[in-house]
Amino acid sequence: MSPLKPVDAHLHEVLAAVAPLGSLNFNLGESQGCVLAEDVFTTFPLPPFDSAATDGYAVRSDDVRTASPTTPVGLPVVGDISAGSTAPYTVQPGLCVRITAGAPMPPGADAVVPLDWTDRGTVNVAINQPVPPARFVRAEGSEAPTGTRLMAAGTHLGPAQIGMLAAVGRNRVVVMPRPRVVVMTTGRELVDPGQPLARGQVPDAVSALLTAAAQEAGGIAFRVGIVPDEPGALADTIEDQLIRADVVLAAGGAGGGLPAVLREVLGRIGAVSFDTVAMQPGHQQGFGAIGPDHTPFFALSGDPASAFVSFEVFVRPTLRRMIGVEPVNRPMVRARLHDRVVSNPGVRSYAAGWLAVEGGAYTVRPVGGSTPTMAALASGNALIVVPEDVTAIEAGEPAAVMVLDKHQP
Amino acid sequence: MSPLKPVDAHLHEVLAAVAPLGSLNFNLGESQGCVLAEDVFTTFPLPPFDSAATDGYAVRSDDVRTASPTTPVGLPVVGDISAGSTAPYTVQPGLCVRITAGAPMPPGADAVVPLDWTDRGTVNVAINQPVPPARFVRAEGSEAPTGTRLMAAGTHLGPAQIGMLAAVGRNRVVVMPRPRVVVMTTGRELVDPGQPLARGQVPDAVSALLTAAAQEAGGIAFRVGIVPDEPGALADTIEDQLIRADVVLAAGGAGGGLPAVLREVLGRIGAVSFDTVAMQPGHQQGFGAIGPDHTPFFALSGDPASAFVSFEVFVRPTLRRMIGVEPVNRPMVRARLHDRVVSNPGVRSYAAGWLAVEGGAYTVRPVGGSTPTMAALASGNALIVVPEDVTAIEAGEPAAVMVLDKHQP
Repeated sequence: MSPLKPVDAHLHEVLAAVAPLGSLNFNLGESQGCVLAEDVFTTFPLPPFDSAATDGYAVRSDDVRTASPTTPVGLPVVGDISAGSTAPYTVQPGLCVRITAGAPMPPGADAVVPLDWTDRGTVNVAINQPVPPARFVRAEGSEAPTGTRLMAAGTHLGPAQIGMLAAVGRNRVVVMPRPRVVVMTTGRELVDPGQPLARGQVPDAVSALLTAAAQEAGGIAFRVGIVPDEPGALADTIEDQLIRADVVLAAGGAGGGLPAVLREVLGRIGAVSFDTVAMQPGHQQGFGAIGPDHTPFFALSGDPASAFVSFEVFVRPTLRRMIGVEPVNRPMVRARLHDRVVSNPGVRSYAAGWLAVEGGAYTVRPVGGSTPTMAALASGNALIVVPEDVTAIEAGEPAAVMVLDKHQP
Repeated sequence: MSPLKPVDAHLHEVLAAVAPLGSLNFNLGESQGCVLAEDVFTTFPLPPFDSAATDGYAVRSDDVRTASPTTPVGLPVVGDISAGSTAPYTVQPGLCVRITAGAPMPPGADAVVPLDWTDRGTVNVAINQPVPPARFVRAEGSEAPTGTRLMAAGTHLGPAQIGMLAAVGRNRVVVMPRPRVVVMTTGRELVDPGQPLARGQVPDAVSALLTAAAQEAGGIAFRVGIVPDEPGALADTIEDQLIRADVVLAAGGAGGGLPAVLREVLGRIGAVSFDTVAMQPGHQQGFGAIGPDHTPFFALSGDPASAFVSFEVFVRPTLRRMIGVEPVNRPMVRARLHDRVVSNPGVRSYAAGWLAVEGGAYTVRPVGGSTPTMAALASGNALIVVPEDVTAIEAGEPAAVMVLDKHQP
């Protein structure tokens, strides 16, 4: 038996072979979830002009310095300024202007008296509290002067970042694009989910699984589905798909057994190596580059549970590297193990687990035993990792846990 | 000044007014990220038939019980069975069949000898290790017999769950739909981001912000953008949009000041209350129901930072309630505060913060002071919450922190 390749060595090799994709200029509305690929500077002050911070009256603060509830100051209201208004009022001494929050401060005024400090008069207003200069005024440039770097390349664009980009007047932005991931399966036993099964047939679970996983990892997935396990059709499909692929995931057909059609095809159109990696499940890993653009190609097990673990360990970090997000790996936590898990010596094992917080500390309960089935993985929210030099972790001991589900815990 | 409404009372009132949406039958491929609205049972055994767990030779285990490296057992190979194969081989005593992982076990055979235990012969094979009965066979129904409940209503559908549903032959699934969120802004000062600004104008940041936030919360957002601040146009737009809205978010135009056009329109087509809530920012909150279907309607501040905090505190929990996800609120953690934050008495304040893990414990650094600007929120990953009865939290003290960004820390 050939020596097993360590998981970390394989991951290192995979990551060394991929680079971040080239950046693209996107519409702001399409950039959500992307990683910023430029530094963003303000091109005008934020806010762009002095404006009222609240609804009230724009005054000269000196005019109301004696105001109190018992001796209010009365001022004639010479106009209304609302947000977006272009009325060219100037506030002369002894006068004021009604103003709404966000509206530009009129020349002459230096403060805003909030409505609640007044009798809300429309012709004359009685003001019962003094206001210091600049109070309730959002000063031009107070948030950021022109030329301020507000966001750095590498920032993940969530709602607040999108809002900020819009606030600085951007409708386009340079981002790292989401990698396009083509997902296909081979296997004569496969039928599309929902179709009746003859004896020996199983639904193609792995293409739905990998499509969803690629999307969850930030990719744009194209599900080709089941490709005939025949050299001509397989080669044609792969070559056709390369035009829209930044990565290809092919599940099944890579077994060491008889119908090594995929290996035969890959030998002609690329350089894909097949390794036996020291892990369980997922010990068979094919990885390389195919086609004129040397598109990364993963040959994964046709077994859904193996493919799922392989995706998490190798493919997801690859997609994140292409997106330009760090860290590429899932978060790891240490959690107290509820029940014993076992592993074969010399291999890193991944068991399905349910990570929870009990009494302020992480705990993890193995789901479905030490070898994950698809049902166990679907009932879990984490992978319990048993290192190569460990054959059992006992109940109560700490275990390393890969956190999978952002919704949990 | 009217008494302030507590944040929790307002949230309670909002949540009491909304219910989960009716469930829908979706294509499996469109159900990712949705919440399952049915219990899912197996309708056939998993696996559906006895199959080889590895590539090798299907044998009668009794035939190889004496096998060893020094005294291998030789067996004639009478055929090949690959996955999906329908060849009707039966393994007679003293014979074997080559088999690939996933292929149905032939009648007669009760175990699989892995390739690595053999000389990989194709006509005759030398087997150098015995195999116990049932070894390397995935038994029919061993993962789940027919009628097993594999997933319960309420399960969040991530990649593993999608894979599992495909594995049980489902191509359609009953889920809670994503709420359709219509986002509009009013304000004569607003221009679309990317357009030049005249004096007194600002880019419409809040509609991009709320659109992104609604999508991040699991909704399908429709960005209407800037609606003229004029009663007829506003009423027409709202009524037109209701046909595709499960929720309407309208930002701006709800001020207590002069152009209360939105309030006037809402008075005619719905019942929306405007409250002054004991929070900072976001103290002005409009909420109610409009139109024939009593569609929930939020009137939010036109100020992006206020709208963002209001979204997090009131709108996001509403969307999650409609989706049927619990808990509806963001996770809260306690973190040691790096720098002092202050708040007005009697109001709950939300400051932008950067949550990190230092020395195994959460810490949080206020970003941009105690009152969040959009730039501060865009640089943070959390909101520091200062309770109503607290006016300052000192550096080094623990603070309650709402975790916003699943990508951090």
